[in-house]
Amino acid sequence: MAKPATTVTIIAERLLQAKIFKLLDETGASGYTVVEGSGKGHNLIRTHERPSIVRDFDIVRIEFVMSDGEHAREIAQQIADTYFKDYSGIITISPVEVLRPELF
Amino acid sequence: MAKPATTVTIIAERLLQAKIFKLLDETGASGYTVVEGSGKGHNLIRTHERPSIVRDFDIVRIEFVMSDGEHAREIAQQIADTYFKDYSGIITISPVEVLRPELF
Amino acid sequence: MAKPATTVTIIAERLLQAKIFKLLDETGASGYTVVEGSGKGHNLIRTHERPSIVRDFDIVRIEFVMSDGEHAREIAQQIADTYFKDYSGIITISPVEVLRPELF
Repeated sequence: MAKPATTVTIIAERLLQAKIFKLLDETGASGYTVVEGSGKGHNLIRTHERPSIVRDFDIVRIEFVMSDGEHAREIAQQIADTYFKDYSGIITISPVEVLRPELF
Repeated sequence: MAKPATTVTIIAERLLQAKIFKLLDETGASGYTVVEGSGKGHNLIRTHERPSIVRDFDIVRIEFVMSDGEHAREIAQQIADTYFKDYSGIITISPVEVLRPELF
Repeated sequence: MAKPATTVTIIAERLLQAKIFKLLDETGASGYTVVEGSGKGHNLIRTHERPSIVRDFDIVRIEFVMSDGEHAREIAQQIADTYFKDYSGIITISPVEVLRPELF
């Protein structure tokens, strides 16, 4: 039986990978999937000598699915607040249906 | 023209890859995309000596898109019923729009 | 704060990668994520000697997120019109929420 759930997709610089995994473990997102790739985006480290520029990144695409949409959003917000003020990254939240409650 | 369609995303242990491809071919999902990655989740093989533990997996992320949402759901359910009773994995179903009817 | 946005997912033969990146840069999708994988789909090059056949492809999965859904759709349509008449590929458009306006 398919049940409503929430997928959170985190795209982050690869250097943040270990920290994000740690935070996911602590917040209770005990299952997630990771794929490596590359990305292009805005460099957020700006100074008067170094303005925002578009550059290439090594990225990880981390996904997790939760039945509890509110909990999923809290975790997503915590990751954004903790890491994405200083680093490039994007988090999307998608409504899905899930065939099994077990998380990967 | 964008048309409504259904994306099915299967995240499975990599050792199941060949079997899932075979089942997809048989059920008529003749186009799909595969990306390799890693994952963390619950080990489903439990005994009184070996309880469920969270561990790391080599995973494949398999996606297919179908205009026929009912058919897509049937295939997803068949994969869950056939393989995910004994192995970790998760299947999500997402509403999308698709720009071309041809499947990859 | 989560805001409504649109995710465009392009699955294309890998040989088209550089051309698609160039078109994305020109159309203003300045941030995107790329993951490499494989796929199975219909070969679109048909002649009376060579009918459509299902074969394996090296693929790229390119994703971008835009707050401006109309702009996202225009870019998606332009890629489909430019490249997917002669090559296999599929583009899906998904409603999401995004936690940060910055694009990767």
